[in-house]
Amino acid sequence: MKGEGAHPFARASGGIGRLIPMAKFMDIHHGMKGVTAKQLQAAHEADLAIESQEGVHFEHAWADPVSGDVFCLSEAPSAGAVQRVHERAGHTADEIHPVPLSI
Amino acid sequence: MKGEGAHPFARASGGIGRLIPMAKFMDIHHGMKGVTAKQLQAAHEADLAIESQEGVHFEHAWADPVSGDVFCLSEAPSAGAVQRVHERAGHTADEIHPVPLSI
Repeated sequence: MKGEGAHPFARASGGIGRLIPMAKFMDIHHGMKGVTAKQLQAAHEADLAIESQEGVHFEHAWADPVSGDVFCLSEAPSAGAVQRVHERAGHTADEIHPVPLSI
Repeated sequence: MKGEGAHPFARASGGIGRLIPMAKFMDIHHGMKGVTAKQLQAAHEADLAIESQEGVHFEHAWADPVSGDVFCLSEAPSAGAVQRVHERAGHTADEIHPVPLSI
């Protein structure tokens, strides 16, 4: 199982010495019809710029400009942490799935 | 953009000398509540065993055993090719999204 146990813990922002367990999440944004490569890159960079506030790391993003669905894969301490980063970056997720199993 | 252009063409099964363009797809299976790591691995291996029939390669799979959603990332000549592999392996996808944009 690739990636399992790769980063089981991370240090929360401002939490010196406080280790928190990490998990993988797949989140989905609907309604992004017509999204361009530049827009996807800008949105991803907006997440990366602030993700450490919540101890999140966004690893990948994939977009279907026809259906308007965007998928983001992250490692994070919780679904709430993923959503807080997306909200502050200006693009709230419509679904956030913990994906404890991965290949 | 990681992965872009990595495998733009692949040789179709039985099509010596016939090169076909490849694209990335994210497909989703619903209703897999309670899926285990072993079951996910077995399903993925069933895809890998026959994927070359359709010129598909399944790269990753992620599962949320609580919601029952399973996400598969592949490179393939078409959404139809992805579905034919999944069907023959016994697990038809509920959604197949071309994801031409990726980070």
